Amino acid sequence: MDPDRLRALLAGVRSGEISPDHALERLRRLPFENLGFARLDTHRALRSGSPESIFCEGKSPEQIVRILARLVEHHRNVLATRAGAGIHEAATAAGVPVAYHPQARLLVGNPQPVEAVGLIAVVSAGTSDLPVAEEAAVTAEVRGNRVERIYDAGVAGLHRLLESHPLLLEANAIVVVAGMEGALASVVGGLVDRPVIGVPTSVGYGVSLGGFAALLTMLATCVPGVAVVNIDNGFGAACLADRINKLADKIR
Amino acid sequence: MDPDRLRALLAGVRSGEISPDHALERLRRLPFENLGFARLDTHRALRSGSPESIFCEGKSPEQIVRILARLVEHHRNVLATRAGAGIHEAATAAGVPVAYHPQARLLVGNPQPVEAVGLIAVVSAGTSDLPVAEEAAVTAEVRGNRVERIYDAGVAGLHRLLESHPLLLEANAIVVVAGMEGALASVVGGLVDRPVIGVPTSVGYGVSLGGFAALLTMLATCVPGVAVVNIDNGFGAACLADRINKLADKIR
Amino acid sequence: MDPDRLRALLAGVRSGEISPDHALERLRRLPFENLGFARLDTHRALRSGSPESIFCEGKSPEQIVRILARLVEHHRNVLATRAGAGIHEAATAAGVPVAYHPQARLLVGNPQPVEAVGLIAVVSAGTSDLPVAEEAAVTAEVRGNRVERIYDAGVAGLHRLLESHPLLLEANAIVVVAGMEGALASVVGGLVDRPVIGVPTSVGYGVSLGGFAALLTMLATCVPGVAVVNIDNGFGAACLADRINKLADKIR
Amino acid sequence: MDPDRLRALLAGVRSGEISPDHALERLRRLPFENLGFARLDTHRALRSGSPESIFCEGKSPEQIVRILARLVEHHRNVLATRAGAGIHEAATAAGVPVAYHPQARLLVGNPQPVEAVGLIAVVSAGTSDLPVAEEAAVTAEVRGNRVERIYDAGVAGLHRLLESHPLLLEANAIVVVAGMEGALASVVGGLVDRPVIGVPTSVGYGVSLGGFAALLTMLATCVPGVAVVNIDNGFGAACLADRINKLADKIR
Amino acid sequence: MDPDRLRALLAGVRSGEISPDHALERLRRLPFENLGFARLDTHRALRSGSPESIFCEGKSPEQIVRILARLVEHHRNVLATRAGAGIHEAATAAGVPVAYHPQARLLVGNPQPVEAVGLIAVVSAGTSDLPVAEEAAVTAEVRGNRVERIYDAGVAGLHRLLESHPLLLEANAIVVVAGMEGALASVVGGLVDRPVIGVPTSVGYGVSLGGFAALLTMLATCVPGVAVVNIDNGFGAACLADRINKLADKIR
Amino acid sequence: MDPDRLRALLAGVRSGEISPDHALERLRRLPFENLGFARLDTHRALRSGSPESIFCEGKSPEQIVRILARLVEHHRNVLATRAGAGIHEAATAAGVPVAYHPQARLLVGNPQPVEAVGLIAVVSAGTSDLPVAEEAAVTAEVRGNRVERIYDAGVAGLHRLLESHPLLLEANAIVVVAGMEGALASVVGGLVDRPVIGVPTSVGYGVSLGGFAALLTMLATCVPGVAVVNIDNGFGAACLADRINKLADKIR
Amino acid sequence: MDPDRLRALLAGVRSGEISPDHALERLRRLPFENLGFARLDTHRALRSGSPESIFCEGKSPEQIVRILARLVEHHRNVLATRAGAGIHEAATAAGVPVAYHPQARLLVGNPQPVEAVGLIAVVSAGTSDLPVAEEAAVTAEVRGNRVERIYDAGVAGLHRLLESHPLLLEANAIVVVAGMEGALASVVGGLVDRPVIGVPTSVGYGVSLGGFAALLTMLATCVPGVAVVNIDNGFGAACLADRINKLADKIR
Amino acid sequence: MDPDRLRALLAGVRSGEISPDHALERLRRLPFENLGFARLDTHRALRSGSPESIFCEGKSPEQIVRILARLVEHHRNVLATRAGAGIHEAATAAGVPVAYHPQARLLVGNPQPVEAVGLIAVVSAGTSDLPVAEEAAVTAEVRGNRVERIYDAGVAGLHRLLESHPLLLEANAIVVVAGMEGALASVVGGLVDRPVIGVPTSVGYGVSLGGFAALLTMLATCVPGVAVVNIDNGFGAACLADRINKLADKIR
Repeated sequence: MDPDRLRALLAGVRSGEISPDHALERLRRLPFENLGFARLDTHRALRSGSPESIFCEGKSPEQIVRILARLVEHHRNVLATRAGAGIHEAATAAGVPVAYHPQARLLVGNPQPVEAVGLIAVVSAGTSDLPVAEEAAVTAEVRGNRVERIYDAGVAGLHRLLESHPLLLEANAIVVVAGMEGALASVVGGLVDRPVIGVPTSVGYGVSLGGFAALLTMLATCVPGVAVVNIDNGFGAACLADRINKLADKIR
Repeated sequence: MDPDRLRALLAGVRSGEISPDHALERLRRLPFENLGFARLDTHRALRSGSPESIFCEGKSPEQIVRILARLVEHHRNVLATRAGAGIHEAATAAGVPVAYHPQARLLVGNPQPVEAVGLIAVVSAGTSDLPVAEEAAVTAEVRGNRVERIYDAGVAGLHRLLESHPLLLEANAIVVVAGMEGALASVVGGLVDRPVIGVPTSVGYGVSLGGFAALLTMLATCVPGVAVVNIDNGFGAACLADRINKLADKIR
Repeated sequence: MDPDRLRALLAGVRSGEISPDHALERLRRLPFENLGFARLDTHRALRSGSPESIFCEGKSPEQIVRILARLVEHHRNVLATRAGAGIHEAATAAGVPVAYHPQARLLVGNPQPVEAVGLIAVVSAGTSDLPVAEEAAVTAEVRGNRVERIYDAGVAGLHRLLESHPLLLEANAIVVVAGMEGALASVVGGLVDRPVIGVPTSVGYGVSLGGFAALLTMLATCVPGVAVVNIDNGFGAACLADRINKLADKIR
Repeated sequence: MDPDRLRALLAGVRSGEISPDHALERLRRLPFENLGFARLDTHRALRSGSPESIFCEGKSPEQIVRILARLVEHHRNVLATRAGAGIHEAATAAGVPVAYHPQARLLVGNPQPVEAVGLIAVVSAGTSDLPVAEEAAVTAEVRGNRVERIYDAGVAGLHRLLESHPLLLEANAIVVVAGMEGALASVVGGLVDRPVIGVPTSVGYGVSLGGFAALLTMLATCVPGVAVVNIDNGFGAACLADRINKLADKIR
Repeated sequence: MDPDRLRALLAGVRSGEISPDHALERLRRLPFENLGFARLDTHRALRSGSPESIFCEGKSPEQIVRILARLVEHHRNVLATRAGAGIHEAATAAGVPVAYHPQARLLVGNPQPVEAVGLIAVVSAGTSDLPVAEEAAVTAEVRGNRVERIYDAGVAGLHRLLESHPLLLEANAIVVVAGMEGALASVVGGLVDRPVIGVPTSVGYGVSLGGFAALLTMLATCVPGVAVVNIDNGFGAACLADRINKLADKIR
Repeated sequence: MDPDRLRALLAGVRSGEISPDHALERLRRLPFENLGFARLDTHRALRSGSPESIFCEGKSPEQIVRILARLVEHHRNVLATRAGAGIHEAATAAGVPVAYHPQARLLVGNPQPVEAVGLIAVVSAGTSDLPVAEEAAVTAEVRGNRVERIYDAGVAGLHRLLESHPLLLEANAIVVVAGMEGALASVVGGLVDRPVIGVPTSVGYGVSLGGFAALLTMLATCVPGVAVVNIDNGFGAACLADRINKLADKIR
Repeated sequence: MDPDRLRALLAGVRSGEISPDHALERLRRLPFENLGFARLDTHRALRSGSPESIFCEGKSPEQIVRILARLVEHHRNVLATRAGAGIHEAATAAGVPVAYHPQARLLVGNPQPVEAVGLIAVVSAGTSDLPVAEEAAVTAEVRGNRVERIYDAGVAGLHRLLESHPLLLEANAIVVVAGMEGALASVVGGLVDRPVIGVPTSVGYGVSLGGFAALLTMLATCVPGVAVVNIDNGFGAACLADRINKLADKIR
Repeated sequence: MDPDRLRALLAGVRSGEISPDHALERLRRLPFENLGFARLDTHRALRSGSPESIFCEGKSPEQIVRILARLVEHHRNVLATRAGAGIHEAATAAGVPVAYHPQARLLVGNPQPVEAVGLIAVVSAGTSDLPVAEEAAVTAEVRGNRVERIYDAGVAGLHRLLESHPLLLEANAIVVVAGMEGALASVVGGLVDRPVIGVPTSVGYGVSLGGFAALLTMLATCVPGVAVVNIDNGFGAACLADRINKLADKIR
């Protein structure tokens, strides 16, 4: 039930066409109809510039292109995550306007320039973590955040991280991407007083357990101010960093 | 917002005291206020005789007695699960009318006789599974179901189960309680064409893993028609069996 | 030993041809011969319309077609689950009458129309859960249940679920199919007073653990009245829902 | 080496008392001496009002009181987490000025009033989660954040959460505390566009696995914008929420 | 239905008192009645001297004594496993004739001397494994097997094991009891051509995982001819060794 | 050092060519040279007819054929396990005399008829378990044991197992092969008084965990007399059954 | 068979009292008798000053004192690990000469001063790790190694570790003791070119999993030159460091 | 900031061009700039001859060749681990001077002869462990250590290991490579008094759990002096053995 239908119902009560008891009965079901929540969704897109995203894994290129084509009618910078090159080709062939970031495996539907506000730092431990780090960085950029990349700064070469210390202190949110033993999130968390979001990656073998060693490391950290998202979830980390950066920048 | 307040709002609209736009604004928030769901809760209790229950673990006797005392003002046969003898004593001392089932660790507040309808069979594998089996059986009885107990019928002595085969075929729902390797749920599921609810118990040692071996066994069963609840959750199994038995008996 | 052979044995005792001691010796073994249980199997198919099914994984198309061909001689609507397109082709080529449901990966041997009774609701959280949801829905339909689908109703867009609340309240059994974090089963369980069967799916990555996160979520739910089947086991959930719906509809 | 000693070194270079080469040698070791990091620590306390905290588990009351006594000489509102009543008594007996929050198991050394800025919402699923929720809430308050508590709002009674929806939309950060299946974090994340920090608790039994089911649920969530801390780590969640709230309130 | 009742039924058929059809009906249910399996149980006890045993964990001394008292009326050398000293006292106080083996935590009801046949070797890795090793050794002795103990022969002092090599080659079955890393079963399996039954124990800490490291080691062994029982299950290993030793000794 | 070299050493001592001290020094190292253990190996093959086997996984066809060719020079019926068709072809092309069992994935080098003694029963739960069951059955046959196959006798159709009860009672050892929930080993163990060796298989999905559910089920069984080997290890089970059967048949 | 007995055997051969064939037969069994290995054990103690140690967990004070009393007759500085105060008292009461280190839970039997050679550094992350760190440090000292302690140097306060960098570079072996997320081993490994031995501790809660998070972190480290021992195994780490330090110092 | 820049800064202070306060401000950041740590890295390569290595998994041949080409400009014997044949070809095609070890999957950039000092023994359990054992052996050789290989010495044929006992006693470090149950590390550790580094391999199936059974076995060992690296990490074990061997040989 949308606002118009609700207004009509109330007008009917006022005019006497609808009895209060009858309206009561209809309104009683309101919580389960689509009034409130659908409106909320619209509000969210307007306010944050973040329309619904598409998680491509387990969907065919055809399905993805269909969803994307519908979303770009109403939104700009629609994100499709974990998108292989085949999806890029299918979207282009179908005439959907897209920009493609192969390393980040991100497809942006109806790509439009956005102002870059605040600062999100994306730190990665090793070269193999780049796909996840780029997923985070590009997602954050597409959503209108200024992003600085501090890559290949793992604990085996701590000095590279320390060089970027001033930059870390400027950021409103820091995304730390690390596989293998994932110690980097603890080390970064100990150096700064900013929100740190750890992203364990599935990089590694044996006891890395597809990212679980890094996940446990980041969650068990003795450093306060660090929280963690799912393994390889650069997108989710960027969404949270985006919320924090926008709050810090008084945009929302 | 309860029905009375809603009726008053609508009356205000009819009388012109409240403008439709103003009412629209208030109603728009309704889904997030307490009208619908609170009412639903009341409906549920009236319809099924199943008021809210109290999970006693991690609560002090004082807290439990306070909650129980408030609930028995409006409901009969209020269940407190995992209730030790100390809770029974505290409730009695506080003057709350209760019946206590020590083996099932169940306390029934404001206990009242109920008619026993349909049939739920509760099957257990061994003597050590009795506390969980009794939690299921007494819960089901308190909620107005006829219950038959088939205890100590594990696969090491299959004939005891087979003796009760006719009884199993009469039941509207069968709760199978088993620890150690939990094979009993598969065996029962293969003998009948009734809904079977498996309850793995934490009885066992070593690879029993506190009930996980039995849980996996029951979930991995090759026999269709079996579903499973949490380890030691006799209460939850009885709630599901109660819903099925009442549907089968056309009570709801 | 079938009934005829048993009757002959008893006649031999009566006539004196067979001594009681000799008959005793033979009868002593009866429980382990095929009299009772084979009969039971026949009873089950007659009563419930549910003949044996074929789980296709790990069998060659040739093996499956041979089994299917034998089963359709005596039964209608024989189900082969997890059947890829190649199995459909092999069955057709072999002249076995089948209907194929590609998304549900179900092959129906000797397909015949059945009356649809009662109501089973199949709720799914996301688009990627559809294969499992369809396995449940088609299985239930083939076995003669009326089915309503409520798809793409995950907790990230709760209002879509709430819109279908009245439908949920009508169902005799609700199958909830969800991957990733699997929270949907708890939410549905909290809204209705009907038997809820959770089916965790292997959709997701990282901590989803191939469906184990959703499985644990559903089993650990604080909402009573929910039970769970194996990961991706839409077929098993439908079998249980079928048993409940038929009981509720007084068919069995 | 503190700033004064460094300044003296530089003055010695300027005056010619110390040769540049000799100073070079001393400064070369600086990164490994205590100048930089110790100073940083001082900066952090001045800027954020968050001195070092004490994790009491595995320490004797005597050890804790000794550390606390030293810290309160230089800092106010020093937090000791997981502090039992015995530690409170020991601190009081030793004359250390403290305030004690028994449910949160928090001891505050040298407690001083602080202005409460911004807004952090702390949501909890059930009564048993209160110790963890209070650890988060009191920590946040002691560090100068305004806190609103939304307790007992689990998914089995969703309406209680929905009533507080406007409050959630005002918060700069939302801490969601939930045990058992932990579905609440997903549901809250789907309702708001604010940073959400999930705290799984060890409340539950069987498949709850001491909080791991809730942890996996929160990490596997399909809702973006949610991050997670260790099981029962209300303190860590509050530290992160504090950082976000202060940024949003332009305090730092 | 026992043999006497079955014989009476057949006599009734012969005499014409009972019609074949009526007898058929009664016999048809036999598999589900207690004739066959109960009789089997009697046969087993007669043949192998192994009556039902009592697993004491999770039972009160009173319950155990009641079961024991009933069993010793018909059987000798009835075993109660995992029996603490309190159970010994309770049994003695109740006048049940018992012998108690404290290290093995075994109580033997109605203890009677038995001839010791064949040879079972029980090998243990360390002193801490003795309770489990003794459970195996005493169980085997009580059931009439000759037992040789080879204790404290872990791989850190391999020569002690090698000294007993001739003894190992004589045994019909070898039970190997080892905790920590459990390598002993592999080493023994490589030295002999006899059936080896591994019993992992819960001795150890950290990665020993309560016996799981030893369990995995024994199951993953590259040495053929080794099988494994549950952690700490000395009783189960002895039962299997007893079956093998009796077969080898042509007793059964 | 072989017996000849040892004898020469002793002769040298006797003749005075070698001093006792010098011989002492050489003999002191004896335990670590190849005298004793190599001899043992020869003894074993002579006595049991079981030469070394080849585990093919992770080896190239070339490597396997080279090892096989060397072994068949001295032994008959050399087993290569987990051998794909390519290995069969490679062996044939290289002129090594072999027999191939494709379902069992077993290649037998220098195949020779052997007398079949005693009785080993191989029971399997479902059709998908056949490759593992056949690995056990053919291994046992090649090593000179009489084997009876009882296939497709899972707990969902218990009567098929019960029909074969007499056969089970005759066997000296019973190998039970089952995947999914693995309940069959418990059921068989409860019906007989013979050594039972459980082989969990990796058949199944979801909570079957690649055979771990069945493994835990079999290890956690409440039925004494059952031991277990690694998942899919039909070969290992047959080796143990072979040892038991030969002992029972007084061959060794 | 000790050297004297062997020498006598050879003398008998020389004198003709014993035939070479007879001696051959006796010598053939030597590898399995106690000559070689027992001698080895004696060599080890002489060479390394490291007699057998006693792991106290799971043994009674009486058992421990008996073993200790026998060992101190022949050895000095005999270690009993995980020894509570009660064991100290029991040993003293029994007149066994001991020194006790309560924090390290180490009892040293027949304590004698030893020269401290080389250098082993023991680094710990937090105060709660001290019992394990002290077990390592005292073990190393008792065995004659110079030890430097670098405590409370976790990654949250990296500067404390960096201050000790020169000391780390001098050590022949570095033992790193850390619980919670265990990142310290990686950080130390990245700073030095010395053998690093990680000891994860069971300090922590939730995802620390009793030390497993730290264990996985240390094993998964991207820094080469780090190896790991069991959780809380300070003793084992010290034994390995002792071997390395003695080699580096040319003592062995 | 490198030494030259630091010297210039100090000269500026002396000359008065830069004020002490300004210099203080710049120096305050020094610990986080690249002075100290970068220097350290140079020292390490000079001292130990071990430049940075390349872990090839998850990198394209192009990326690897680019990194390798840059590293060989300044270093000799640069190692690329887990390098397939394609990487060898790509490097050769690009004109980078390399030597390739296919079984070890190691590519050596700018290969130069090195003197082989000390002794490292590499022991492996079975033929399938060779790739990991060779990774360890070749890595150690390339870094200038003498290496002895003792292959195919698993516990099922212990005598082969014992033959090599004298060699083991000469080694400064022993790398033990074993899959399946991994018992070999314990057995070697019990025979020698040298540092033992266990490398579990992923060889095996079922309960081997991709190397975790062997990992747990090695970590849980009751033999002191053994430490463990990640599954299949022959490279890491060789790096640690190299450090120990060089220390023992007084090279560092």
